[in-house]
Amino acid sequence: MTISMEEFSNRYKTLLDRSLLSAISKLEAPDVLKEAMIYSLKAGGKRIRPLLLFSTITAFEKDPERGLAAAVSLEMIHTYSLVHDDLPSMDDDDLRRGKPTNHMVFGEAIAILAGDGLLTHGFQLIADDNHLSDQIKVKIISLLAKCAGPEGMVSGQILDIQGENKKMDIVELEYIHRHKTGKLLSFSVLAGAIIAGANDKQLALFEKFSQHLGLAFQISDDILDIEGSEQVIGKPVGSDTGKTKSTYPAILTIQGAREHLSYHIEEAKNTLKEIDLHTSILEKMTDLIETRDH
Amino acid sequence: MTISMEEFSNRYKTLLDRSLLSAISKLEAPDVLKEAMIYSLKAGGKRIRPLLLFSTITAFEKDPERGLAAAVSLEMIHTYSLVHDDLPSMDDDDLRRGKPTNHMVFGEAIAILAGDGLLTHGFQLIADDNHLSDQIKVKIISLLAKCAGPEGMVSGQILDIQGENKKMDIVELEYIHRHKTGKLLSFSVLAGAIIAGANDKQLALFEKFSQHLGLAFQISDDILDIEGSEQVIGKPVGSDTGKTKSTYPAILTIQGAREHLSYHIEEAKNTLKEIDLHTSILEKMTDLIETRDH
Repeated sequence: MTISMEEFSNRYKTLLDRSLLSAISKLEAPDVLKEAMIYSLKAGGKRIRPLLLFSTITAFEKDPERGLAAAVSLEMIHTYSLVHDDLPSMDDDDLRRGKPTNHMVFGEAIAILAGDGLLTHGFQLIADDNHLSDQIKVKIISLLAKCAGPEGMVSGQILDIQGENKKMDIVELEYIHRHKTGKLLSFSVLAGAIIAGANDKQLALFEKFSQHLGLAFQISDDILDIEGSEQVIGKPVGSDTGKTKSTYPAILTIQGAREHLSYHIEEAKNTLKEIDLHTSILEKMTDLIETRDH
Repeated sequence: MTISMEEFSNRYKTLLDRSLLSAISKLEAPDVLKEAMIYSLKAGGKRIRPLLLFSTITAFEKDPERGLAAAVSLEMIHTYSLVHDDLPSMDDDDLRRGKPTNHMVFGEAIAILAGDGLLTHGFQLIADDNHLSDQIKVKIISLLAKCAGPEGMVSGQILDIQGENKKMDIVELEYIHRHKTGKLLSFSVLAGAIIAGANDKQLALFEKFSQHLGLAFQISDDILDIEGSEQVIGKPVGSDTGKTKSTYPAILTIQGAREHLSYHIEEAKNTLKEIDLHTSILEKMTDLIETRDH
């Protein structure tokens, strides 16, 4: 396959966006619920998780579309986590990607329920998919629940809330990120690998890759939060430090955070080499995380 | 099998309660999250949904324990819905079954996350079960997500919130209950039937039975809310009418609500006869709904 990273991203982002909208539009549910779900799904994310899933399938030279249901599910569950994280009793954010957060537009009750709906429907999409075998569906659903649930993302958010206004060391901070964002990023890669039929050795290497990638992603997020311009990243710059939230630059200095970022990028890329498949798009996505400006 | 309804209930409630606690206790998650999840799971529900699931398996003369993972999952997802429904931005309830609600004890953020965790982990338990085939797991997960998600329980809660302080007719009220409580009650019965290997005709009859049972359950709830004593039902009597929420007695009078209740109980029992399996425990559970005082 000779397809540029940009071409690949555009093609599968378009496919994903269309599928997300169609999945919600055809639900038999009250309009306000569907509007609230679509509002946050359309809020213009980078779709990095679905793209990682599609790219991993590509590494096996299989058709990325086989992962479409899992990718749509993944983006719904990522979006649910953002909607709930933004709530007044959680991070209390008014803006997300430059737009009013879900509860600012629809109110808290609808926002909570839209999140609940996205999370629940995510599981249904995988179960109802026409392409995957039952065995693969069960594996993916189990992994997704583990990565998103009380042993994964939910734990990360609990610890993040408890860590607010508390000075953390790098070990505590990393533990939070491994759960809050890392687990679902790992799922993105592992689900792609499972769908493509990876063996255990390949799965272990993809997991290692995804863990470095996830930490790199979070560190670059923290750096951007200090250095990015508000217009580009869509939320007030320094909003995290304003709440004296622990961040990589706050603990390691900006220079230390950059070194940490480089380390994880390099480890991720070394792991890709070890995997020894057609990982050129995953390599380019890894590079992008190092150099991204939003 | 000659086992009394009471014996059956006690045996499987004990099994369920033990399994619920064990499923949460062994999670690698922050203590406060596990405590919050366990707090609401232990809040003393009647476990009617799991018991319906077990009883339905019994109707086929199969071992009810085959449905244990689904029953635990079901109770977790029912409990998540209670935790979220009680939140200040939703029904704003301070008490549930005579005890402070989850957010009153743990705060709103933890309560939302405990709910999210229960919902997500529920799906994992079915996927990870050792007894069911992948085909049955996928069927049950799909049905559970449909019954609990935006086409089921979540829709019911949206319409319930929108209907507050609004005069509803019986059609609107029934639509809400069919979604808010009815879908998950139907799942209880249908999941048991699927696990026991029901054919399509049996599934259709069990669905009809469960729909009448679900409405009967809701009507008796509304009647109890007016007639029960606060001590017995564990929340302030008349708390629903206090908010001018539409209820069956409010629309139909108490006498009309009782007739409606009898109609659905009779239809449920007629359907059980038509099913022509070993449904004696399901019959007794149906009778209990008509005569329950809490």
